[in-house]
Amino acid sequence: MPGYETDTVTRIETNLDDVSPQVLGAVMQQLLAAGALDVWFSPVQMKKNRPGTMLSALCEEDAAEKLADIIFSETTAFGLRVEKIRRLKLARRFETVKTRHGEVTVKLGFKDGRLLQIAPEFESCRAVAENAGVTLREVHLAALEAARAAFACVA
Amino acid sequence: MPGYETDTVTRIETNLDDVSPQVLGAVMQQLLAAGALDVWFSPVQMKKNRPGTMLSALCEEDAAEKLADIIFSETTAFGLRVEKIRRLKLARRFETVKTRHGEVTVKLGFKDGRLLQIAPEFESCRAVAENAGVTLREVHLAALEAARAAFACVA
Amino acid sequence: MPGYETDTVTRIETNLDDVSPQVLGAVMQQLLAAGALDVWFSPVQMKKNRPGTMLSALCEEDAAEKLADIIFSETTAFGLRVEKIRRLKLARRFETVKTRHGEVTVKLGFKDGRLLQIAPEFESCRAVAENAGVTLREVHLAALEAARAAFACVA
Amino acid sequence: MPGYETDTVTRIETNLDDVSPQVLGAVMQQLLAAGALDVWFSPVQMKKNRPGTMLSALCEEDAAEKLADIIFSETTAFGLRVEKIRRLKLARRFETVKTRHGEVTVKLGFKDGRLLQIAPEFESCRAVAENAGVTLREVHLAALEAARAAFACVA
Amino acid sequence: MPGYETDTVTRIETNLDDVSPQVLGAVMQQLLAAGALDVWFSPVQMKKNRPGTMLSALCEEDAAEKLADIIFSETTAFGLRVEKIRRLKLARRFETVKTRHGEVTVKLGFKDGRLLQIAPEFESCRAVAENAGVTLREVHLAALEAARAAFACVA
Amino acid sequence: MPGYETDTVTRIETNLDDVSPQVLGAVMQQLLAAGALDVWFSPVQMKKNRPGTMLSALCEEDAAEKLADIIFSETTAFGLRVEKIRRLKLARRFETVKTRHGEVTVKLGFKDGRLLQIAPEFESCRAVAENAGVTLREVHLAALEAARAAFACVA
Repeated sequence: MPGYETDTVTRIETNLDDVSPQVLGAVMQQLLAAGALDVWFSPVQMKKNRPGTMLSALCEEDAAEKLADIIFSETTAFGLRVEKIRRLKLARRFETVKTRHGEVTVKLGFKDGRLLQIAPEFESCRAVAENAGVTLREVHLAALEAARAAFACVA
Repeated sequence: MPGYETDTVTRIETNLDDVSPQVLGAVMQQLLAAGALDVWFSPVQMKKNRPGTMLSALCEEDAAEKLADIIFSETTAFGLRVEKIRRLKLARRFETVKTRHGEVTVKLGFKDGRLLQIAPEFESCRAVAENAGVTLREVHLAALEAARAAFACVA
Repeated sequence: MPGYETDTVTRIETNLDDVSPQVLGAVMQQLLAAGALDVWFSPVQMKKNRPGTMLSALCEEDAAEKLADIIFSETTAFGLRVEKIRRLKLARRFETVKTRHGEVTVKLGFKDGRLLQIAPEFESCRAVAENAGVTLREVHLAALEAARAAFACVA
Repeated sequence: MPGYETDTVTRIETNLDDVSPQVLGAVMQQLLAAGALDVWFSPVQMKKNRPGTMLSALCEEDAAEKLADIIFSETTAFGLRVEKIRRLKLARRFETVKTRHGEVTVKLGFKDGRLLQIAPEFESCRAVAENAGVTLREVHLAALEAARAAFACVA
Repeated sequence: MPGYETDTVTRIETNLDDVSPQVLGAVMQQLLAAGALDVWFSPVQMKKNRPGTMLSALCEEDAAEKLADIIFSETTAFGLRVEKIRRLKLARRFETVKTRHGEVTVKLGFKDGRLLQIAPEFESCRAVAENAGVTLREVHLAALEAARAAFACVA
Repeated sequence: MPGYETDTVTRIETNLDDVSPQVLGAVMQQLLAAGALDVWFSPVQMKKNRPGTMLSALCEEDAAEKLADIIFSETTAFGLRVEKIRRLKLARRFETVKTRHGEVTVKLGFKDGRLLQIAPEFESCRAVAENAGVTLREVHLAALEAARAAFACVA
C-alpha cells in the first residue's frame, strides 16, 4: 500500500494452562527487557475447564531465539507457534512541545508526509505530572493541545 | 416482585494470581461435586501484569463452609469474599417429549402460571444424540419443536 | 462521603450458557430502551467447558420488574440475581461549547462545587463530526479544549 | 478440501492501549460501512498493566487500504499487522419461509450439495418480531422449524 | 532455531455469534475426540453488541477436514479460517517417579539435550490424589520434587 | 464459619468506556500506592459496541474516599458503586526458609491452627532469583520444597 511503511516481524504465541499468573507477570517484563517489541496476554478457555492464558510476543526475527529461550525456561511451555507477520506503519518523528506544566515529548505519525497521529509519550507525561503535582490526564491533554497547535494535525 | 419465586443464596468469590489453570479446572469439578449450585471463572487483570482468574461459586448457605474448605485446600487463596444474594426465579416443572430420535426431558419455566421458558435438558439431548447417531443440535431443535407444539409457549 | 452525591440502584445479573450471542445483542437494546441505566456483558467460563456470558443491568428499583420480564422472555434464564447497590456520584451539569466544527454539548462533574470532570457528549460529537466531515477524535478533542478553556478544570 | 469452497481474505489487526472504548465502538461501525466483512474486539492485557483491546478486521484485499486509512485516522494506531488468510466456506443460498408471524429469509449452507446449515436471517427475524409483537426468539424458532420442514436438513 | 524441534500444524478458527455455549462445550469434546491437538475459546466482541466466541483448533494437516466437518455440522459456522503454523518444540521424554502417595508420570522437555521442563502429568496426579485421599496440589508438588531430585533440572 | 477469620472491606467498582488503557494502567499503581488492598480490571462489553473495562478496588472503609478521589480525578468516571463485603480469611504467619539459592520469605495460612497454605513471597523469590542468576520458577519451587519440609503442610 503506497504511503505506508512496511516491515516483517516475528510473532511467537503459546497457550499456557499450567503456570501461575504471578510467573507470567514476571515473564512479560523479561521478554520486554530482552528486546520484544510488544508482549500481551489474552484470556483463553482451554480443555478440562481450564482458564488459560495465551502469551503473544512480537519481535525482530533475530531476537526470536532469545525470547523462545526465556519462555521455555520460565514457563511450562513445551511448544511455541512462530509466524512471520507483515506490518504496515506510519512514518514516525519525535518532537518536544511546551506546556504550562513542563516540556513533553510527542510522537508524530505520517502517511505520505501527511500528519495522521499525535501521541504524547506516556513516560514523558508521567514524569511531568509527578513533578508538577497534577494529574496524568491534565498533562496528556495539555501536550496534545500544544502539539495540535504546533503541528496542525488534520485528523 | 409478584409472580416470581425468590430465595437467597451465598456467593463465594476470590481472585487468584498464583495458581495453575490446570488446578482450577479440577477445583471446578470438586466444587460442583460438593454441592455448588454453579461455579464460573472470569478473566481478571491483576497487579504486576498478572493475568489472573476470579473464581465464583453459588451455593446454599449451609454448603458454604465445605466449599470454602475446598478452595483453601486446593488453591492458593488466603481469603474469600462471601455475600448473600437474593435470586428471582421462574417456577419449574420437568416434562418428557417425544421426538423421532427418542424421548427428551425438557424443563419448563413459569411466571404466575404463564409458560415463559422451554429448555431441553442438555444431558438428555446428548444421550439421545449419541444413541441415534445425529447431531446434538438436531436433537435439541427437535425437542424444542415437540415441546412448543405440546405446551404452546407464548414466548 | 461528604462532597459526593449518593443514591441506591438495583443490579440484575444472570449467567447465560444456553443462548445465542445474536439474541443477547438484541436484548441489550431492549433493556436500554426499557429504562436500564446501563447494561453490559462479561465473558465467563462455565461448567462443561461452556464459554458463557454474564449479563448485568443497573436500573432504578421500580424498573427492575420490567427488565426481569424482558430477560426471562428473550433469553434462556431461569433465575436472576438481584442486589441493591449504593452509588457515589459527581454532581452534573450540561453546557454547550463552541468549536470550529460546530457546537458540542459537554457534561461537567463536580465534587463540592469543584470541577473534576469534563466529558464531551458522544452523540453530540458524532453529529458534529458527520456534519463537518472530520473525524470523531478531532471533534472530541476540540470540544475538550474549548471546555477546558471555558471552565478551567483543575484536573 | 473437496466439497468446500475456498477463498483468500485479508486480516488486519492492531493492539490498542491508548484509545477510548467510545471511539472504538464508532470505528467498528465505520469499518463495517467501508466494506469490512467482519470486525471484532478481543480483550488483551498489555504492558504496564494496561487493559487493551485488539481490533481485528477481515476484508477483501482491495478494501484493505481503505480500512487501514480509517484505523490510522480514528484510532491511535501507529502500526497494523496485515495477513492473508485462506477460508473454507459452505456454498450459500437464500430462501424465504412462511411462519405464522410473517415471512422470514433463511440462509442455507451446503457441502457438496448436502444441506448442513439453516440460519434464519437476524434482521429479517427482528423485523417480523417487531411487526408481530412477539419475541425475537419465537420468530427465530418458528423460521427454523419452517425451514427444517421445507428443506429437510440432515444436520 | 538450532536446538529446538520444529513441525507444521494446521490452525482452524471461526468466530461464532449465533450458537449456544452449551453446544460449544460439547463441540470442544468432539474435536478433541476426533484428533485435535488442542482446542480453545476466546471471548470476542462482535458487531451489533454480540458477545461472541472465537473457536480455535490445532491439528495435523490430514485431520483438518474431519474437524471442519464437525464444526460445520454442530455449530452455526458458514466459514472457517485455515492457516499453516510453524511450531518450535522441546524434545520430550516420559518417566515415572515415586512419591509417598504413589507413582506419577512426568513429562520432561529438552533443548539440545539440556533439561528445561519437568511437568507431572495431570491425569496421573489426579488418579494418585484420588487414590491416596490427598489434594491434587500435594501430589503435583511431591512429583515435581521427586523429579527435580532425580533429573537435576537446571531451570 | 468457625476456624476462619473474618472482616469487612469496601469494594469500589466502576465501568469505564471513555478512558485510555494507558491511563488505567497508571491509575492501578496510584490506587495501590494510596492503600488499596487489591485492584483489578475485568473486560466488559458495553453499549454501542464499546470494549470497556470494569475497575474494581478493595480497601478498608476509611481509605474509600481517598480511592474515590483518585478515580474521579484520573479517569472519566461520573459514578462509582460502593459495597461492603464480608471476607473469610486464613490466619497468617511469615517465616523464612533456606534454599541453596538464598533465604526466602514464605507466608503460611492456617485454619484452626492447621496449616493449609504455604506461599513463597513473590518479591522475595524475585530478589533471590536475580541475585543467584537462576529462574524465578527454580527459586519458587526450592522455597516451596524447603517450607514443606520444615512445616509439614498437610495439604
